[in-house]
Amino acid sequence: MSNLDLQAIIRSLKTVLPNDKESIALHEPSFCGNEWKYVKECLDTGWVSSVGKFVDKFEAMLADYTGVKQAVAAVNGTAALHICLKLVAVEQGDEVLVPTLTFVATANAVTYCGAIPHFVDSEERTLGLDPWKLLEYLSDIANVRDDGCFNRLTSRRIKAAIPMHTFGHPVDLDPLVEMCSRFKLALVEDAAQSLGSYYKGGHTGNWGKVSALSFNGNKTITTGGGGAILTNDEELGKQAKHLTTTARVAHKWAIVHDHIGYNYRLPNIDAALGCAQLEQLPGFIKEKRTLSESYRKVFEGIPGVHFYTEPDFAKSNYWLNVLLLDERFSNHRDVLLEMTNNDGIMTRPAWMLMHKLNMFKDCPKMDLSVAESLERRLINIPSSATLMS
Amino acid sequence: MSNLDLQAIIRSLKTVLPNDKESIALHEPSFCGNEWKYVKECLDTGWVSSVGKFVDKFEAMLADYTGVKQAVAAVNGTAALHICLKLVAVEQGDEVLVPTLTFVATANAVTYCGAIPHFVDSEERTLGLDPWKLLEYLSDIANVRDDGCFNRLTSRRIKAAIPMHTFGHPVDLDPLVEMCSRFKLALVEDAAQSLGSYYKGGHTGNWGKVSALSFNGNKTITTGGGGAILTNDEELGKQAKHLTTTARVAHKWAIVHDHIGYNYRLPNIDAALGCAQLEQLPGFIKEKRTLSESYRKVFEGIPGVHFYTEPDFAKSNYWLNVLLLDERFSNHRDVLLEMTNNDGIMTRPAWMLMHKLNMFKDCPKMDLSVAESLERRLINIPSSATLMS
Repeated sequence: MSNLDLQAIIRSLKTVLPNDKESIALHEPSFCGNEWKYVKECLDTGWVSSVGKFVDKFEAMLADYTGVKQAVAAVNGTAALHICLKLVAVEQGDEVLVPTLTFVATANAVTYCGAIPHFVDSEERTLGLDPWKLLEYLSDIANVRDDGCFNRLTSRRIKAAIPMHTFGHPVDLDPLVEMCSRFKLALVEDAAQSLGSYYKGGHTGNWGKVSALSFNGNKTITTGGGGAILTNDEELGKQAKHLTTTARVAHKWAIVHDHIGYNYRLPNIDAALGCAQLEQLPGFIKEKRTLSESYRKVFEGIPGVHFYTEPDFAKSNYWLNVLLLDERFSNHRDVLLEMTNNDGIMTRPAWMLMHKLNMFKDCPKMDLSVAESLERRLINIPSSATLMS
Repeated sequence: MSNLDLQAIIRSLKTVLPNDKESIALHEPSFCGNEWKYVKECLDTGWVSSVGKFVDKFEAMLADYTGVKQAVAAVNGTAALHICLKLVAVEQGDEVLVPTLTFVATANAVTYCGAIPHFVDSEERTLGLDPWKLLEYLSDIANVRDDGCFNRLTSRRIKAAIPMHTFGHPVDLDPLVEMCSRFKLALVEDAAQSLGSYYKGGHTGNWGKVSALSFNGNKTITTGGGGAILTNDEELGKQAKHLTTTARVAHKWAIVHDHIGYNYRLPNIDAALGCAQLEQLPGFIKEKRTLSESYRKVFEGIPGVHFYTEPDFAKSNYWLNVLLLDERFSNHRDVLLEMTNNDGIMTRPAWMLMHKLNMFKDCPKMDLSVAESLERRLINIPSSATLMS
């Protein structure tokens, strides 16, 4: 077969999606729980800002849901990631391994520490960082010494790796943990997209020394803007809280700070929204997985296009559903984007790969051919939980 | 008179403050306007996150109120200040002049750019940066060249000055503008505390090339957490919006970023709160000024203590009211803090001076004797608008 049946793809989308809507967003939130009640309580009591019971409650609920020892709420996922990198002591001039196929926040957070993103390839099986290809690459370019891992080509220390669970689908964490241990790299999970996603039965965010979540408006649950730092290390948890609250030292009145800190606290009013949303998360995930199963079925029979499904070790939140065109049809990607968006069905390509962005074009990188192929062929399709409710 | 009449001070506070409350906060917000209506609209429409009509409305209302050409909402005052410094091109290794008597965010924001805070003294008349003393100091240590102002002692470029309007009281801006021009320094106003404060008839924030506001929970108005960048330079306004929204380039679907940007957008739900609060700001300012006038009267007759009032060129929002003890009674400061806080009247000292904090102790500084004296003698007393309503 030499042509991609674009009409069949559009028809399949329409079979799954509701037909009573003028336009269908890629991902939109749903506020059908206790959102009003909790937010109104903030206004009635005057506790809207950086201290309040909903911040504490949200952190406890997050730790409980993800199974980590401590969750620290933050103003957004980027801020959470920045603090994660500070916690594992990423310093000025270090390199940090970052998938080139990611949202820009992963690479930006590295630069906020004065460090340099070093871009690595993805694998099609997970859409995330390829542990085996990276292992081979590091074996080639890295020297492991007593004081860490060093890039032979740049002489810089490689301090950490940030696998990102792309569109909610977990990367293969076990070999990454093994590799990080062998190369003395700190493992930081960018779990911004994977709240509700599990790897071999454990919630994502439990493999990194520290991990970051996001609750932006387009995520599985939202707090308006918000994020969190997850960790199983209580000392790092304490430090996370300290660094996100301007590193202020507790005192009945004196205002003293003992480190350069950050104003990364999540306001109580946003945390209130988060509590109400988190109560509904199991339902959202169920609906999102039902939607994905419907997509899987309708796209099964169409040659040249493949609906991405979770790898066998994972149970994914299917944050954003993914269609992958065959390489031979990659020149149809933009036509399909044009047709669907013109038709009121919001779709989008992958993020432009990090190493192609102007500000990162001179950063170190390995062969990135798989990510480059994925970028040419990938389309995100509507994924809101509300589409099934 | 050799003793400070502490009981007279406490009695005077109680004369002004309501007597039906168990405890009185230093500053608490009031939500008696359209807060619930606007926030509910966000929840009902699903627009809670980084895009939405309340963000646009809040920015327009802020520009209108302060008289600047453009206001750009940000996630908090620290973020706003960070972007201000980026906008005036503060770079790695630069020095930036910062009052040692300020909240830690002013100095932290400088370090976020890889720059070094250079601490300068305050004057008792304004509680803010002393333009005349700074002029003399710079004449002594700085070389002005074609490519900027350089510190002769450190060889570093001095790029900018950040006067801060302490507790809402405007610094003397005209001589600062003159000095910045002479020494080729970018003027950035830290107006975090001075929304509603005027200098010679114009709203603070109009003298800097760019300026920062804060709407933290303890400020004159609050958005939960929030801030804004103000500027009269439309090009800088555009850049501010771009940098705070991850420097994403507009496109119907492609996700491309052309600079290292920041996730500093104010969520729509917080902006909704801001719109409702801003509608009530003139009333809040009126109540706060009435409270200050009451304080002024009751403290008039007590020797050794002085209620700080605005300089003659200013109309202040009196964000936090200030008592200054005479130098000879500075050893009574902590006793007074202890007595008032034990009595349910929240008071606090000034922030610990920046040059005394561990992380800034090696930063360059001028003679800071006035700020040191102010720190020894200064006490903030309850200042909420609600205390008069």
